[in-house]
Amino acid sequence: MNLAKVIGTVWATQKHPELTGAKLQIVQPMDHLEQNVGSPIVAVDTAGAGPGETVYFVSAREATIPYPADLAPIDAAIVGIVDRIDVFSK
Amino acid sequence: MNLAKVIGTVWATQKHPELTGAKLQIVQPMDHLEQNVGSPIVAVDTAGAGPGETVYFVSAREATIPYPADLAPIDAAIVGIVDRIDVFSK
Amino acid sequence: MNLAKVIGTVWATQKHPELTGAKLQIVQPMDHLEQNVGSPIVAVDTAGAGPGETVYFVSAREATIPYPADLAPIDAAIVGIVDRIDVFSK
Amino acid sequence: MNLAKVIGTVWATQKHPELTGAKLQIVQPMDHLEQNVGSPIVAVDTAGAGPGETVYFVSAREATIPYPADLAPIDAAIVGIVDRIDVFSK
Amino acid sequence: MNLAKVIGTVWATQKHPELTGAKLQIVQPMDHLEQNVGSPIVAVDTAGAGPGETVYFVSAREATIPYPADLAPIDAAIVGIVDRIDVFSK
Repeated sequence: MNLAKVIGTVWATQKHPELTGAKLQIVQPMDHLEQNVGSPIVAVDTAGAGPGETVYFVSAREATIPYPADLAPIDAAIVGIVDRIDVFSK
Repeated sequence: MNLAKVIGTVWATQKHPELTGAKLQIVQPMDHLEQNVGSPIVAVDTAGAGPGETVYFVSAREATIPYPADLAPIDAAIVGIVDRIDVFSK
Repeated sequence: MNLAKVIGTVWATQKHPELTGAKLQIVQPMDHLEQNVGSPIVAVDTAGAGPGETVYFVSAREATIPYPADLAPIDAAIVGIVDRIDVFSK
Repeated sequence: MNLAKVIGTVWATQKHPELTGAKLQIVQPMDHLEQNVGSPIVAVDTAGAGPGETVYFVSAREATIPYPADLAPIDAAIVGIVDRIDVFSK
Repeated sequence: MNLAKVIGTVWATQKHPELTGAKLQIVQPMDHLEQNVGSPIVAVDTAGAGPGETVYFVSAREATIPYPADLAPIDAAIVGIVDRIDVFSK
């Protein structure tokens, strides 16, 4: 999984029927120090995340698992909202 | 999923039978600010997207889901046409 | 899918039994303007592509779909030979 | 699989039900010479790894395999703790 | 698939039960000209490759296919030993 921050929303009326009602959030992947990593992607939100929240998301095939429809064309899904990140001191 | 712009089409007569009739669009992945990210790829169009339209696509195995054939050799598919992108102000 | 040019062949006698008879082509991924993208990979050829031809290939799990054996250890397969690439004028 | 070092932990109370009880470790991928490779990711720990230990993890769909729940939304899992790395002299 | 050279071995006693007896090789991915590409990864060896040999490996989900156990947590497997690489002259 990767950490990310919710930075926006995508609106699309013309889409695959299985995606009707899905909330599409734009998330900026980041590391454990909250530094951005790569470019933002679009993820289905299954955890009820709000703007600016830190979340973690799964990508690829397993992103369909938290989604109610069996075979939705999804490759990224927010699955948890982060409360705290502990980094071990070396 | 990733955002992208439709920038071209690929024509291929000699191909896997399951791909007969599939429309192969060249899409340029981009971020939420419409900046290009990486190189263009070839995606099957299941949403009826036209030249220059902003879309979002799924990649890897789940790209076969929106396609009518059960086991088509597809690893990228356009699944929605974007109406609007909202970026949260910080 | 990605566009690529066929640039070589790999010969291997000692290999997984399901790969017996598979033709392993070296393909150089490229973009729609025929510029190289990343490093060459090895793909099973299911389209009968020849040296120097422009093809498109699928990667990851769906690469096993065009291959006759059910569970061959394959993660890239050439599935079509490109006739023409149209790039939309902006 | 990739080698990594366990560098932290993620805490999240609001998450997908299948992830309840899962230990989410932050791991820094590294090469065989223990040099960092890319950015840290979040992996479910199925091997009981502690802070600072060298582990190897699987990613993508097969990360759900070592996890007890059938269809957990997981895309990275620690599956072993490394005792020793031998590098062949050339 | 990708070409690689076998450069080392990983030893781990504490690991997922399905991996008992699996030989974990460190492989350095390379291109058709034997130039290194990216960082070494850990792959299960199903082809009996020795130190310094040139091999090709599959990655992601299909890496479990050559492995005897049904659902081993594996995402990279050596599936062939390369005899010869032919690069077409342009």
